[in-house]
Amino acid sequence: MKRLFDQMKGRMRLLRACAATGLVVSALLAPAPVFAAVSEETAFVFNTLLFLIGGFLVMWMAAGFCMLEAGLVRSKNVADICLKNISLYSIAGIMYYLIGYRLMYDGVDGGFMGAIGFWSPDDSAALAETGDFSAGYAAASDWFFQMVFVATAASIVSGTMAERVKLVPFLIFTALLTGIIYPIQGAWHWGGGWLSEMGFADFAGSTLVHSVGGWAALTGAIILGARLGKYDAHGRPRAMPGSSLPLATLGTFVLWFGWFGFNGASQLALGSAADSIAISQIFANTNMAAAGGVVTALILTRIIYKKVDLTMSLNGALAGLVAITAEPLTPSIGQAIIIGSIGSALVVFAIPFIDRLKIDDVVGAISVHLVGGIWGTLAVPLTNGDASFLTQLIGVVAIGAFVIVLSTIFWLILKYSIGIRLDEEAETIGSDIAELGLEAYPEFGGGSHKYRGT
Amino acid sequence: MKRLFDQMKGRMRLLRACAATGLVVSALLAPAPVFAAVSEETAFVFNTLLFLIGGFLVMWMAAGFCMLEAGLVRSKNVADICLKNISLYSIAGIMYYLIGYRLMYDGVDGGFMGAIGFWSPDDSAALAETGDFSAGYAAASDWFFQMVFVATAASIVSGTMAERVKLVPFLIFTALLTGIIYPIQGAWHWGGGWLSEMGFADFAGSTLVHSVGGWAALTGAIILGARLGKYDAHGRPRAMPGSSLPLATLGTFVLWFGWFGFNGASQLALGSAADSIAISQIFANTNMAAAGGVVTALILTRIIYKKVDLTMSLNGALAGLVAITAEPLTPSIGQAIIIGSIGSALVVFAIPFIDRLKIDDVVGAISVHLVGGIWGTLAVPLTNGDASFLTQLIGVVAIGAFVIVLSTIFWLILKYSIGIRLDEEAETIGSDIAELGLEAYPEFGGGSHKYRGT
Amino acid sequence: MKRLFDQMKGRMRLLRACAATGLVVSALLAPAPVFAAVSEETAFVFNTLLFLIGGFLVMWMAAGFCMLEAGLVRSKNVADICLKNISLYSIAGIMYYLIGYRLMYDGVDGGFMGAIGFWSPDDSAALAETGDFSAGYAAASDWFFQMVFVATAASIVSGTMAERVKLVPFLIFTALLTGIIYPIQGAWHWGGGWLSEMGFADFAGSTLVHSVGGWAALTGAIILGARLGKYDAHGRPRAMPGSSLPLATLGTFVLWFGWFGFNGASQLALGSAADSIAISQIFANTNMAAAGGVVTALILTRIIYKKVDLTMSLNGALAGLVAITAEPLTPSIGQAIIIGSIGSALVVFAIPFIDRLKIDDVVGAISVHLVGGIWGTLAVPLTNGDASFLTQLIGVVAIGAFVIVLSTIFWLILKYSIGIRLDEEAETIGSDIAELGLEAYPEFGGGSHKYRGT
Repeated sequence: MKRLFDQMKGRMRLLRACAATGLVVSALLAPAPVFAAVSEETAFVFNTLLFLIGGFLVMWMAAGFCMLEAGLVRSKNVADICLKNISLYSIAGIMYYLIGYRLMYDGVDGGFMGAIGFWSPDDSAALAETGDFSAGYAAASDWFFQMVFVATAASIVSGTMAERVKLVPFLIFTALLTGIIYPIQGAWHWGGGWLSEMGFADFAGSTLVHSVGGWAALTGAIILGARLGKYDAHGRPRAMPGSSLPLATLGTFVLWFGWFGFNGASQLALGSAADSIAISQIFANTNMAAAGGVVTALILTRIIYKKVDLTMSLNGALAGLVAITAEPLTPSIGQAIIIGSIGSALVVFAIPFIDRLKIDDVVGAISVHLVGGIWGTLAVPLTNGDASFLTQLIGVVAIGAFVIVLSTIFWLILKYSIGIRLDEEAETIGSDIAELGLEAYPEFGGGSHKYRGT
Repeated sequence: MKRLFDQMKGRMRLLRACAATGLVVSALLAPAPVFAAVSEETAFVFNTLLFLIGGFLVMWMAAGFCMLEAGLVRSKNVADICLKNISLYSIAGIMYYLIGYRLMYDGVDGGFMGAIGFWSPDDSAALAETGDFSAGYAAASDWFFQMVFVATAASIVSGTMAERVKLVPFLIFTALLTGIIYPIQGAWHWGGGWLSEMGFADFAGSTLVHSVGGWAALTGAIILGARLGKYDAHGRPRAMPGSSLPLATLGTFVLWFGWFGFNGASQLALGSAADSIAISQIFANTNMAAAGGVVTALILTRIIYKKVDLTMSLNGALAGLVAITAEPLTPSIGQAIIIGSIGSALVVFAIPFIDRLKIDDVVGAISVHLVGGIWGTLAVPLTNGDASFLTQLIGVVAIGAFVIVLSTIFWLILKYSIGIRLDEEAETIGSDIAELGLEAYPEFGGGSHKYRGT
Repeated sequence: MKRLFDQMKGRMRLLRACAATGLVVSALLAPAPVFAAVSEETAFVFNTLLFLIGGFLVMWMAAGFCMLEAGLVRSKNVADICLKNISLYSIAGIMYYLIGYRLMYDGVDGGFMGAIGFWSPDDSAALAETGDFSAGYAAASDWFFQMVFVATAASIVSGTMAERVKLVPFLIFTALLTGIIYPIQGAWHWGGGWLSEMGFADFAGSTLVHSVGGWAALTGAIILGARLGKYDAHGRPRAMPGSSLPLATLGTFVLWFGWFGFNGASQLALGSAADSIAISQIFANTNMAAAGGVVTALILTRIIYKKVDLTMSLNGALAGLVAITAEPLTPSIGQAIIIGSIGSALVVFAIPFIDRLKIDDVVGAISVHLVGGIWGTLAVPLTNGDASFLTQLIGVVAIGAFVIVLSTIFWLILKYSIGIRLDEEAETIGSDIAELGLEAYPEFGGGSHKYRGT
């Protein structure tokens, strides 16, 4: 818009000169560069289209998390995790409508949170009808795009706490996370709050989305405790292999695919060549960070464990994606590969480390989203001169502390009121039978079948 | 286009005044608002792009129906339902090319049907080459978008009649549904026929697509009869659990994702800020109706059955989507949640009700698409003042009667000619072995394995 | 752009005449047609957006190949094929960045290959900032779109050689294919090399992508040999059914979906009505060629084998897609159906034929991508008057010979250095246990379970 405005001003000056000298012909030719630009209304449509495309791609990530987690839990808990995923996506949207969006974006003004109330589209529609396109995009497209991000944060928690958390308290926590925790910390940066004023830089949410999910998952996993039988008498972790690695792989591909919307549309504008160039660089960098993550996990697991580990490679792809999310624009492709590779390497070491701490993270989500997210956030100053390491660190710590404190309070209230953990028998039978009264794979001879008689 | 034209007219008036007074400078500045608008050719590209994006999203819904149904049938019938789904999508496209599109759109003029003949692109390409963009969009993009809708209607039937209908008569019925039934009733409203002239309002097809599929499925299910063993000696329905709930969940997510194209691109234009604002509202409403559907099904099944039902929650999401499809634009987000929630509640009660009527609907498609579609169509006047309840009712009844009559005729002809039902042995063995000579999951120890020796 | 320029010239002439006669009003009205066109910057954004949308759709095809192959191998090799697919996609991107893109596109000038070196975005960003949009699109969007094509070629090889090729040599071959073989032959046509100067026509890669993958797969399959037990004592092939036909179906739907990006965005421009019309025709033709392929396979397998074959129908869809890829723009829809149907028919006969030659192609990829690709390339002159059959043949033979020679050299070097084949015990146990130390479906009682004790 600014460029167009400058051109208009230049044209006015030229026209005044022309009128004085009678050079009408030159004046009429002068506007030519204006025709070459994107018109205001065209930019409005482009910007809105970007939010819509980005939004449906990120919405699709809900399916990715669902398949990833359905593939990595044991078959007796698959239907339950499917239900949790489709429910949390739904609840996240409703909470963001009821309270979250305005808490995050309405009148934060350098402070700690916005207003309380339902969201409804502002007057951009009315303005546009009068030919005033200065809003820049349709309000509902922005709301839709922001809403699918909330769901992403909630998806992270379900994977870590799978196989033993009860359905109802999990869904209540989801409502609290998406209606209160996420929007308040989101207000600090994206809503224009105090972190934003300090110069904190998190382009698409390594910290604001992924670490937030990771901190909530970490807090929950500690309060909830490990699955029965996860640790042997000597405290050594036992492998509990997932029921369907092709579904886990599919989920990873879905997430990778959706991440083009997650990072690309976080440019927030498509209405100029410059924006389209930026988004293109973001697409390339996002892809290559993930590619670097896969190859790094391949090589490291081959060296350390002699076998190449599929699950670790999937998590390596996701770690690369999380790591590049804080700054997908300024790195070169080579730098993006390195940022993703380091994220993946951290995850290869973090997963067994967290396991040894007896924090039972079923799908490795804490390592991927929290460790990867912290790394990505702290790496921003390496390629973006406007960011400072100290401010990045302050943001990571402040948001971490906030999420840990609120998550702890919420989980403890839930624990000592309705209880958050399945009883031993239910956990042994599996949450599918215990909570839903059905089986995910009734004919495939695995999982809960054998417990039916008990 | 109209807005641009108005602006041009305004500019002409202004210019005439200027010429009279010699205020050439002002005249030259006056066109500025025109630069701010979308140019005709840009609007053409936007509109076409909307159809293409909407089209591939709806095409993807074919995969969603396939996964949903593959997850909800028993493993001995999974390959057969996969084959039916990819075949019906293919046949729908071919029939719509051979006869359907022109029957629906070519010269309906307030009447009952259009012309008979192959479709080929009209002269929009020729016009565009001469700089005349008045066609507004590429003809083939519209054809593509309309074509994927036909396939959706056909997908609904396959789920209801799964596990016992023979492949060949099913595919013949698909050709009749997509080549004759769907296009004729479609002509009544979207083709500009008599229902359209009455003021019937069905934005994206609660009735024209979903109820049509639902009526055809209902008719077929009654004529076909229930699966062997579905009802016990006392006529009580027996549960026949689906083989893979994660695939059913995946299918639901795919449908939800594709529905943004289904409803969003039914705005039919993206070439102005106003259109982009409308599509954004449609995206938000579509999502929130589904979210409301999920949460309502969660709560209701928890209350009624004590257990939360995953399959019902998936159907709740779909019911919300079907319900909002007749009018996804005028409701507020809150209204969209309510419309979706009521659709879901209706389905929670309709599924056991239809079951008790001994109409065996394998996946619940009649409840979701027919009941949900009727509800959505009748709910239009609640938020859209241009619609009347009576006209909506006339549309629902007229289209219902038409589809029931033709479907009955077609199914009965097929029944008494080539037969529509697998024989008892084939149904027991499973349609995979009986019809395709293979198994969907040959190594997973379920389904048809045990029948191999028979 | 040319049209805009012509209009500008016309306007200049008109203005000069007006200035002479004082008809300023007419002059001011004259620019109207200019407003109707797409501005240069808007075209830049459209073109870039096309590459980005096309790019993410083709990226998603990597998931399609993965699911297709995961469904068609036995369960003891499913995790291994998943790992190969996500790894090859990652390696393809890295190799294309390190060497491939510039080898294919930088300074080919009618010759045989381009320059050697890393890729980085050229100066289109700098130009655009100065208001010069003549680059036409963002360099990184083009890179991203070209990069996902490389991965497609590599995906073809993994399916054919599944279940017995070792992981590490396969990944090394992938690096050589995507870094050297693909880019050099790609330079001959798309890079503006000698085939391009001859008038060879391959719109989206029937030869350049699909046949290349097919030739590499054929060479590899011959050098690698058939799976243990694939042929009985009399040399007759044994059926080795895939582990999950719904996953194979899902993969086919994903590929079909992604193919709209593959062919549609190969128009390489969306910045004019004419381009959007062309892309629309491509979408319709791409879809209908696949639909024709499905129906043809249905009918042929019903006639020949009495049973309708799901796997063959899936391959029929893919064969139709491969066949239309060389020329998706000039055929009418009817012609597209025929081209796809012939492609499918060829595959129905090629699969058992190749089987009888004792070339063990696990998923039928040689038939689909090589036979289908040759057919599609040779069929171009049937609808595109600018192409000649002889030149098409020269292209097919030249690229075939090149890929065969280099693939043979690479596979033989790998065979006699690190070895390319699992040993007999590992192949019997399955590559999941042997190479990854885990199982894809640990609870489903199939596949490698029974070998665990050995």
